Amino acid sequence: MKKKIKKVNAAILIIGNEILSGRTQDKNIIFLTNWLNLKCGISVNEVRIIPDDEKVIIKNILYLSKKFNYVFTTGGIGPTHDDITAQSISKAFKVKYEFHKEAYAILEKYYGKNKFNDGRKKMAKMPRGAKLIYNPSSAAPGFITKNVLSLPGVPSILNSMIENCKIYLIKGTKTYSKTINLYTVESNISKKLGEIQKKYKRYVEIGSYPFFRLGKIGVAVVTRSVSQNKLKSVDNELFKLIKIKKIQILKI
Amino acid sequence: MKKKIKKVNAAILIIGNEILSGRTQDKNIIFLTNWLNLKCGISVNEVRIIPDDEKVIIKNILYLSKKFNYVFTTGGIGPTHDDITAQSISKAFKVKYEFHKEAYAILEKYYGKNKFNDGRKKMAKMPRGAKLIYNPSSAAPGFITKNVLSLPGVPSILNSMIENCKIYLIKGTKTYSKTINLYTVESNISKKLGEIQKKYKRYVEIGSYPFFRLGKIGVAVVTRSVSQNKLKSVDNELFKLIKIKKIQILKI
Repeated sequence: MKKKIKKVNAAILIIGNEILSGRTQDKNIIFLTNWLNLKCGISVNEVRIIPDDEKVIIKNILYLSKKFNYVFTTGGIGPTHDDITAQSISKAFKVKYEFHKEAYAILEKYYGKNKFNDGRKKMAKMPRGAKLIYNPSSAAPGFITKNVLSLPGVPSILNSMIENCKIYLIKGTKTYSKTINLYTVESNISKKLGEIQKKYKRYVEIGSYPFFRLGKIGVAVVTRSVSQNKLKSVDNELFKLIKIKKIQILKI
Repeated sequence: MKKKIKKVNAAILIIGNEILSGRTQDKNIIFLTNWLNLKCGISVNEVRIIPDDEKVIIKNILYLSKKFNYVFTTGGIGPTHDDITAQSISKAFKVKYEFHKEAYAILEKYYGKNKFNDGRKKMAKMPRGAKLIYNPSSAAPGFITKNVLSLPGVPSILNSMIENCKIYLIKGTKTYSKTINLYTVESNISKKLGEIQKKYKRYVEIGSYPFFRLGKIGVAVVTRSVSQNKLKSVDNELFKLIKIKKIQILKI
């Protein structure tokens, strides 16, 4: 029996002037893409980095949430004036921006009644109907509104929350990937590689990436597919090519 | 006399399945955003990461090139089948995809007539009318088509070419930035910070970013403006706030 392939995709929306200004190196894209691909079988089809600007956030939320199965936002859910993700999503989906009872209770308990000031209370305000993504490291929860999951920008906190997203996600068919590192240059294999890609167009995605390691030039050939059999067939073709061209393999 | 402010902006379009799959950590965004902001006075207003897919590339090129002063693409200009940036841009702008005479001559000289195979020749094919961005490290040039500058994906090569982009760019007014690192939590200063931001809304952008360093929690307050005077005024307000709240400064 043929296994049915379930394609599930997502977009990532990084909200933050600090990334666009070059002040901060983003670390969330690589973490989220790996987690979604490897742990959930969800392929990330687009990433956008946008400023802390309400109109821009609304436009992107509406576009991406319609186009992809899930949207992951990072950043803008803290206590300061530049944290405007929650109210922007509320406006995008035309729902009230209001205190989430459970989030309020969690934060009040975490800070204690006396220290639960306005800034901290702000972190309990969410789009009406949002469900919580629990935060084991600093209490303030993320939330999901329709198919949009909102996480904080601080990588260590985001990482600690990621498993709590799982209950809201439908898993897709896992994509298998294989990398063969060769001591050659791209132009030496580009023609044949193109032919192999053409032959397996429907099943396997072949990528070719030059690298420089320990003073040597090489090419990483990366194959990706939901079918392990097709991946094996492409492998065989690659090994034929490697043999004919007498290319040295660095690592598989 | 009042200095006239010239706003110039750009978008970055990262083309590459290897970033979306989580295989590769992007290093070009932080490099380009810093270079554009600091060296050229050009603010980066949006970044997108998209797959090696012709239709998607065309759509994004047309949208971003219309919306922003410049678009920088990275990736997809090598010799293999998955390098489709040049032909996609040709299609987007409805111009011929053909050999660029000078690029052809450069590559032929670099590789030698005998080793100038089809894969290498492919790197001389560009949209008609494109101008070259010279490549001091591996010969294969980047190119500019209308307001779209196309660079390679390998960070070391991209970095070596960046100064050769300058002749095609109009500089904007420099944005000044200042960071004050404080030993406090965001919610302690969020209210007052919001008031200061409101007062200087038109001139200064204030960002607030929590950090964890050496086991201590802190907040980096980042101010950005084209006016050094306005930046100073905000500074004074911040120092008043720091004094009142008795906050310890870690670093300015």
